[in-house]
Amino acid sequence: MYPKPIKDFIDNFSKLPGIGPRQAARLAFWLLNGEKNIRENLKKSLEGLSKEIKTCQRCYFAIENNGNDKCHFCDNSGRDHKTICVVEKETDLATIEKSGNYKGLYHVLGGLFSALDTAIPKNLKMPELISRLEENKKNASKGVKEIILALSPTHEGDLTAHYLERLLKPLKIKITRIGRGLPYGADVEFADAQTLSGALDSRKEIK
Amino acid sequence: MYPKPIKDFIDNFSKLPGIGPRQAARLAFWLLNGEKNIRENLKKSLEGLSKEIKTCQRCYFAIENNGNDKCHFCDNSGRDHKTICVVEKETDLATIEKSGNYKGLYHVLGGLFSALDTAIPKNLKMPELISRLEENKKNASKGVKEIILALSPTHEGDLTAHYLERLLKPLKIKITRIGRGLPYGADVEFADAQTLSGALDSRKEIK
Repeated sequence: MYPKPIKDFIDNFSKLPGIGPRQAARLAFWLLNGEKNIRENLKKSLEGLSKEIKTCQRCYFAIENNGNDKCHFCDNSGRDHKTICVVEKETDLATIEKSGNYKGLYHVLGGLFSALDTAIPKNLKMPELISRLEENKKNASKGVKEIILALSPTHEGDLTAHYLERLLKPLKIKITRIGRGLPYGADVEFADAQTLSGALDSRKEIK
Repeated sequence: MYPKPIKDFIDNFSKLPGIGPRQAARLAFWLLNGEKNIRENLKKSLEGLSKEIKTCQRCYFAIENNGNDKCHFCDNSGRDHKTICVVEKETDLATIEKSGNYKGLYHVLGGLFSALDTAIPKNLKMPELISRLEENKKNASKGVKEIILALSPTHEGDLTAHYLERLLKPLKIKITRIGRGLPYGADVEFADAQTLSGALDSRKEIK
């Protein structure tokens, strides 16, 4: 029913996560009825992703393609280089960073183990984490003292954390995982069993 | 915290309706970690909207920019040219068309009156509807017999419908508005007062 360029737009935009064909159709007409420079800016942004972004060769966070090989975390001597926080994805890193309490470095795994597929995912930056730690170890002043696994408390997060624990154990570095419990503002009455047992396990003494 | 090209992407994509900064960030990294041709196809789709789409000069639905001036509704002699269904926007037209029971023509207003602003919106295709009907009237065989106002049963839809009723009255053409009532599958118990009084008003005799 829609003309072909709009059909193509809907096909392509509804492939994006979280955007269905109805929202894509609404977007198409919103853009058509809006100013041309909005469409131009979107085009430029897509181009920017393709041409101006690469990944930090230490922590695999995204960096601008401007000659620098390290991100502004890895390249910042003001940060605690003895702590590495392992995250699933870039947006998790952003949330932790915005919370404002963490001053160490990061390592972006790029995914988690799948709950359905028993194979070890090949694209996760786990070998890269090992070689990063081994290289650090050679240099005594740089030795990493703690690895924080900041993976989501889901089945996939648990599988990945268990595998990483085994993988990292021989390196004899302290490994921790972020605490489980009730989120701020929650009501104990409505908490599920897994959250509550996590909260009980990670109880803290009040001093 | 994100590199500039990603910040720009988030800024531009979170301007789109229904997309917030968080979803835009997720989209950016999803695209970065995906294949390049997905980004290329999105770019081409945006270009397609700018270059290959114009509006039908009768009903203001979108058409492909290929020499034809009328859409495939207005240009289709198999459709009922004596009935015009007035809709707010292109996606409303698509929903009515998909329901499969309407065989007349359309008129896309391009918006509704605002509940907050008393001024008559200038961009609505109401003068265009009047001149379309007046032109048809000159040609007896083409005279439109019914205008169906298929505007949403909201305050904005009501304001627009009332204004259109007054505007169209001098033309002495039958004007109808789509029925109000309970949607298919609804429970009378949970219907709100306005829906129920609409349903009572539009009750039909069972024969």
